[in-house]
Amino acid sequence: MHPAYILSGPNLNLLGTREPDVYGTQSLADIEALCAARLREQGIEAITRQSNHEGALVDAVQEAGREGCGIIINAGAYSHTSIALLDAVQAVNVPVIEVHLSNIFKRDEFRHHSYVSLGADGVICGLGATGYICAADALANMLGR
Amino acid sequence: MHPAYILSGPNLNLLGTREPDVYGTQSLADIEALCAARLREQGIEAITRQSNHEGALVDAVQEAGREGCGIIINAGAYSHTSIALLDAVQAVNVPVIEVHLSNIFKRDEFRHHSYVSLGADGVICGLGATGYICAADALANMLGR
Amino acid sequence: MHPAYILSGPNLNLLGTREPDVYGTQSLADIEALCAARLREQGIEAITRQSNHEGALVDAVQEAGREGCGIIINAGAYSHTSIALLDAVQAVNVPVIEVHLSNIFKRDEFRHHSYVSLGADGVICGLGATGYICAADALANMLGR
Amino acid sequence: MHPAYILSGPNLNLLGTREPDVYGTQSLADIEALCAARLREQGIEAITRQSNHEGALVDAVQEAGREGCGIIINAGAYSHTSIALLDAVQAVNVPVIEVHLSNIFKRDEFRHHSYVSLGADGVICGLGATGYICAADALANMLGR
Amino acid sequence: MHPAYILSGPNLNLLGTREPDVYGTQSLADIEALCAARLREQGIEAITRQSNHEGALVDAVQEAGREGCGIIINAGAYSHTSIALLDAVQAVNVPVIEVHLSNIFKRDEFRHHSYVSLGADGVICGLGATGYICAADALANMLGR
Amino acid sequence: MHPAYILSGPNLNLLGTREPDVYGTQSLADIEALCAARLREQGIEAITRQSNHEGALVDAVQEAGREGCGIIINAGAYSHTSIALLDAVQAVNVPVIEVHLSNIFKRDEFRHHSYVSLGADGVICGLGATGYICAADALANMLGR
Amino acid sequence: MHPAYILSGPNLNLLGTREPDVYGTQSLADIEALCAARLREQGIEAITRQSNHEGALVDAVQEAGREGCGIIINAGAYSHTSIALLDAVQAVNVPVIEVHLSNIFKRDEFRHHSYVSLGADGVICGLGATGYICAADALANMLGR
Amino acid sequence: MHPAYILSGPNLNLLGTREPDVYGTQSLADIEALCAARLREQGIEAITRQSNHEGALVDAVQEAGREGCGIIINAGAYSHTSIALLDAVQAVNVPVIEVHLSNIFKRDEFRHHSYVSLGADGVICGLGATGYICAADALANMLGR
Amino acid sequence: MHPAYILSGPNLNLLGTREPDVYGTQSLADIEALCAARLREQGIEAITRQSNHEGALVDAVQEAGREGCGIIINAGAYSHTSIALLDAVQAVNVPVIEVHLSNIFKRDEFRHHSYVSLGADGVICGLGATGYICAADALANMLGR
Amino acid sequence: MHPAYILSGPNLNLLGTREPDVYGTQSLADIEALCAARLREQGIEAITRQSNHEGALVDAVQEAGREGCGIIINAGAYSHTSIALLDAVQAVNVPVIEVHLSNIFKRDEFRHHSYVSLGADGVICGLGATGYICAADALANMLGR
Amino acid sequence: MHPAYILSGPNLNLLGTREPDVYGTQSLADIEALCAARLREQGIEAITRQSNHEGALVDAVQEAGREGCGIIINAGAYSHTSIALLDAVQAVNVPVIEVHLSNIFKRDEFRHHSYVSLGADGVICGLGATGYICAADALANMLGR
Amino acid sequence: MHPAYILSGPNLNLLGTREPDVYGTQSLADIEALCAARLREQGIEAITRQSNHEGALVDAVQEAGREGCGIIINAGAYSHTSIALLDAVQAVNVPVIEVHLSNIFKRDEFRHHSYVSLGADGVICGLGATGYICAADALANMLGR
Repeated sequence: MHPAYILSGPNLNLLGTREPDVYGTQSLADIEALCAARLREQGIEAITRQSNHEGALVDAVQEAGREGCGIIINAGAYSHTSIALLDAVQAVNVPVIEVHLSNIFKRDEFRHHSYVSLGADGVICGLGATGYICAADALANMLGR
Repeated sequence: MHPAYILSGPNLNLLGTREPDVYGTQSLADIEALCAARLREQGIEAITRQSNHEGALVDAVQEAGREGCGIIINAGAYSHTSIALLDAVQAVNVPVIEVHLSNIFKRDEFRHHSYVSLGADGVICGLGATGYICAADALANMLGR
Repeated sequence: MHPAYILSGPNLNLLGTREPDVYGTQSLADIEALCAARLREQGIEAITRQSNHEGALVDAVQEAGREGCGIIINAGAYSHTSIALLDAVQAVNVPVIEVHLSNIFKRDEFRHHSYVSLGADGVICGLGATGYICAADALANMLGR
Repeated sequence: MHPAYILSGPNLNLLGTREPDVYGTQSLADIEALCAARLREQGIEAITRQSNHEGALVDAVQEAGREGCGIIINAGAYSHTSIALLDAVQAVNVPVIEVHLSNIFKRDEFRHHSYVSLGADGVICGLGATGYICAADALANMLGR
Repeated sequence: MHPAYILSGPNLNLLGTREPDVYGTQSLADIEALCAARLREQGIEAITRQSNHEGALVDAVQEAGREGCGIIINAGAYSHTSIALLDAVQAVNVPVIEVHLSNIFKRDEFRHHSYVSLGADGVICGLGATGYICAADALANMLGR
Repeated sequence: MHPAYILSGPNLNLLGTREPDVYGTQSLADIEALCAARLREQGIEAITRQSNHEGALVDAVQEAGREGCGIIINAGAYSHTSIALLDAVQAVNVPVIEVHLSNIFKRDEFRHHSYVSLGADGVICGLGATGYICAADALANMLGR
Repeated sequence: MHPAYILSGPNLNLLGTREPDVYGTQSLADIEALCAARLREQGIEAITRQSNHEGALVDAVQEAGREGCGIIINAGAYSHTSIALLDAVQAVNVPVIEVHLSNIFKRDEFRHHSYVSLGADGVICGLGATGYICAADALANMLGR
Repeated sequence: MHPAYILSGPNLNLLGTREPDVYGTQSLADIEALCAARLREQGIEAITRQSNHEGALVDAVQEAGREGCGIIINAGAYSHTSIALLDAVQAVNVPVIEVHLSNIFKRDEFRHHSYVSLGADGVICGLGATGYICAADALANMLGR
Repeated sequence: MHPAYILSGPNLNLLGTREPDVYGTQSLADIEALCAARLREQGIEAITRQSNHEGALVDAVQEAGREGCGIIINAGAYSHTSIALLDAVQAVNVPVIEVHLSNIFKRDEFRHHSYVSLGADGVICGLGATGYICAADALANMLGR
Repeated sequence: MHPAYILSGPNLNLLGTREPDVYGTQSLADIEALCAARLREQGIEAITRQSNHEGALVDAVQEAGREGCGIIINAGAYSHTSIALLDAVQAVNVPVIEVHLSNIFKRDEFRHHSYVSLGADGVICGLGATGYICAADALANMLGR
Repeated sequence: MHPAYILSGPNLNLLGTREPDVYGTQSLADIEALCAARLREQGIEAITRQSNHEGALVDAVQEAGREGCGIIINAGAYSHTSIALLDAVQAVNVPVIEVHLSNIFKRDEFRHHSYVSLGADGVICGLGATGYICAADALANMLGR
Repeated sequence: MHPAYILSGPNLNLLGTREPDVYGTQSLADIEALCAARLREQGIEAITRQSNHEGALVDAVQEAGREGCGIIINAGAYSHTSIALLDAVQAVNVPVIEVHLSNIFKRDEFRHHSYVSLGADGVICGLGATGYICAADALANMLGR
């Protein structure tokens, strides 16, 4: 089976150092490792990508569509503004799970809407790092594991 | 430990018979059983409630706040219209996970907003029955299991 | 043939006493009787329900879906606020005719929109008690009478 | 008694040929005949008019106000855009019943609002040709027949 | 003279335990007692009702209209969403005073609008338990006491 | 104890002569006298001010903040348009009760919103002159009388 | 000098008979005569046109642009909906005065906006027939009379 | 007969010097003189007031209500923001004509709405100084001159 | 093959004379001739129609649906207001290309939306007369030429 | 050279005492002194004005237009509501710099919009007293110092 | 003559493989080749660029402004969200034609608005690959070919 | 002390050549030099970055947060659309001053809102190159220079 892609958007590279009371003390590497381990338990390898560039995330979604089996994506702020990411998500034929560490509905009103949600199969938010484990389980489940 | 409450809102009693292509063929009892089993694996008993009455759901959330350890709630259509449920969710001191079987962001615009989300700790949608298992895991995790 | 359900929402139990210049002097029982008689002429029995509880109306719509041949519903104020009723109406496989005694488009702006209308087969408003007779005729017609 | 006017707006002349799955296979002449017959049973003659011109419909409403006993009007697309028709409807002293073949509330959002509804006595939609029969009954009833 | 009704909506049964810094430490029973005592000083008995069910509150308003002399109502979250309660309030012929313990205009924007206010004679908010005493005085005054 | 300020906004000087069916026949002096008497019963002197000038009302609120113990304010039309008054109200450290004689929620939609409400401790409307007595009681209560 | 055009829109042919308490008892012919007389006093002949057809009014504005010296126009309901009339008014090189008999700002909200106003030189409303005399004076003034 | 009041709002004292291509080269004194002369021809004396203070204009409207026979008012920018002026205009029992020199509907969108228009009897705009003469004529006409 | 229809809406008959800096100096006849010539090169005859009447354009679209092979339409101002034209366009089974001479997105905001666009196959704007040649090419292409 | 005007709006007279954590501990006099000193270094004298009255600020802007070389204005709450101030700012021919001590974009949404900004040459906010020094520099620069 | 730039935005590299029923089976290379050939027939060479990166498209527009003779741009999803692209388009002095393969007005509402349209000279949509040929013709025409 | 970062967004590399009447004739290098010189006077070195890529600007803000003492940022068009930049600005612990050369409040409405402003400490606009000098002063001041 092709690997799953774990994609992270802008500023997520700061995880663990930025507002730890909101986002926790785990680094992005920590969270990616947790998620990848869970996927591996179910026989799926993981590839991770983080970028502050919208275009790089579009590239990565397309790559995952060609060479991956599914996508776990936290597009950060681009979730709220990027129709290009929505188009990419809608163009690929693999399952897509959207994850947010915090509950975006408890934050600024302009964070309540996600274009990615319009194309994703499922959405998980507010569960912190656990959300990534849930996403791994859900993805494995969709892939018949 | 007190039991967890699995609460289901209006028309969810029709699951399995109503629009199975949207909501799947599992009955509500099937899904509740799956979720309860997952909780039990982690040492948490489950109590289930379904009602078509907004007030009965408010009552149940309050009861769960007094006598339960956490809440997994799919408030159905009341998610979108009930500030009373939001108040109840905000008034209780136990973790609350909101679940929707379908991805509400792919449906009618008036289903994109959930008052319950403004008070819940986490939100999971679009993962079907798997969403309930994720919710069980997340709840157990929040309770230190 | 299963009976038709004539469902009435909140405050309609006050008909005949409340603002008779707006709603006429006939009681709800009078109107139900007129409508039931018209249905009976076409070989359809009628069951009537009135409730001030949104959940009870959802219950009744579901019951009508299981045990009735069609629904004539005046959901009163819940027409404007209840997505739960819309879901129930969309979940049943029998014809649904929505009726309002007054022309809701001549009243407060928040009464111009009805969630029930989004799911009903037909809508009749402003014809007073005559609207129920029209609804009976239309329902009979849809049922091939 | 003066005759009743059955007025039809733009594109209704295409009935029976245009999107028959939405509007049915009956021509406008068929529907007018059904409605006129029902009126005649109650002692009311009918005059029919169809026009694609907003102004011609305003003229016809005025004529019906001078020389008719009531109006059954399906203003088609002008329902949603014509304040001139609303003014005409409000200026005449005969009962006005608005009819739409389809349930306009299940169609594009810009079809949910009708200026004609703000002036009509009653509104019927979604009942197909039956709606015209109901309108005939309601009109006769308002005229004391 | 008929008794006055003191009606309380959803989650108000939690008063004294829920967010005491917002709502104070008095229980609902304490507040009802204060209000009833004030009414009794002016020769009016009080009947109290609390429910988490919108329909039960509609029932109670109707009952107060038949068997009471006036209504003091804090409809809680239903204030913001219930047109059914507005209809009930507008249907009864006794004075209605709306009360909120907190200043709803300092809270979430969706709490700034109250349907009940559109039908009530007077509105009092932000005065805590004192607001109920003011309401008792105002009601007595309206009843000519 | 410093005196309480009773502040009245534009056109309230016309009370008793302007639309007496809406605002009653009492003059502003009558109402101020009632309110001052009630305050005096509780050991608080009153200073009254009326102005048609927004700036004069801002001045008066500031003065009350420096030299008064509390404010009872009916800012009339400036309630709906004056952020300057809101700022003044928020800048003072004395309790502020907003009063409106009529129920502003039953009037034009542009009167439903009050900037003053966003800063006041409590709001009373629709109770006529009685509202001022309630405000006096509430203010005394807040001041520990 | 070319003649001035006095143009009247839909339903204005009913003046004098329709809602005389709103529009007065003068017929359109009476008002046109008053206005034409005033123009004639200043050496300007008048041509009058009334139509219920938007297109006919566009035609008339164009004709006035070619063969007239100015336009006094009361476009009735088309004022609020016709961008075509605005385009026509903007395309002609003669002065245009818009008149409304009633004060449109005291009527339904959808009558507060006029497309014609965006192109007219001046607007007069609420002055009844006097408004036409004012318009004649203003037009004569603009034409250097 | 009492005198008519010609009231001018903020910045109108700059007329003739400020943006003469928009507002013409006549000073406010020139325009007031023209208008007063026209009134005097019809036997009405005029009192003129200009202020940059909203409150002073409210005072003047009230004074005109007590001691004048009618009001011609150009409230300048306060037209768009002052509910206090609307209240004053609605409180007086003399005819009120609103005038604007320029066509406010051709300017910034926030100038399209006037609170004063909601209370005035008539509105004239875009006619420059001629508008004041029209207003004088209209006022005289309303006063039976 | 049936002829193609080139339809032009209100005020387009003024082309060449009205605001030539915006619309160019070519007359409508010039543009129609260019377009017809291009169509003829591809073996398609053209019929041209211009009207200031919305209804006449609806008639023409219907006629083109019955007797033509395709439609090139510039509905002018009716593009922005006519649902009737949209209905007509949607009712015909021939390709429809919408053309605007100017770039409507650089003009007034109310010109940014076109109902015709919701039903047309393609839209071309801002290319001046060239747009008609492109439309001819596109139409020929759709017809397999 | 004429002096520069430093204008301050409502409640700014409270600076130093009101919410010092938001607005700092410097009094308005302190800030005016800092700004005036900076201007004097560049050869410009300063005149300072503070008022809680919108009209007084309009007067002051006009005076500055006649007798000053430029304006530094913090209109406080009137920034958000006063079109009269905008008009005054647009009417004067001297440079205008708008200053706000706090970053208004981090405060209530109704403070994000400033009418003064629509007319000012430059806007500075969030820099505290430093903002006034920057404004002095910018003004001097615009005056060629 | 400098070459023309054919610029393609995010996800257009997927053309031919992604939703072929919406976007056709031609690859982007096919379409670019068609367009370039048409340009070459008129003596204009073409340079093609595709990127999923907004910034890269801004770079390319700037390059085209320096080194090209015109731009044909399909900015894909960035059309709807990128003010940066609009700025770039407005900053260059060469003609810009915007193209969309599908009719964006028949798709999601958030695709109805294009920032690029506010700066482009012309817009073509819904014509598929033919649209690029039209764009080539229009560009050549604007360049005097 | 770490250096300050002067960051410039899309199309600012065109400064001096693009619309010089709006943006002046100074190049970006000129302005950066002015600003850097002013910082250097106060003992702060400057690093400059310009990019048309949103992601590159996010990278630069993060870098400035790690390796700089403060940020002066003109994010150009990304100011209005980039929540990612807002997140970056909020994530860093150094002072941030936002600068715009022109007064964005006098331009298109979609330029009135800046996401960067929601996170910046201060905002300066409309002062041209002087704004950068003010920003340098303000930054130095915040850093205690």
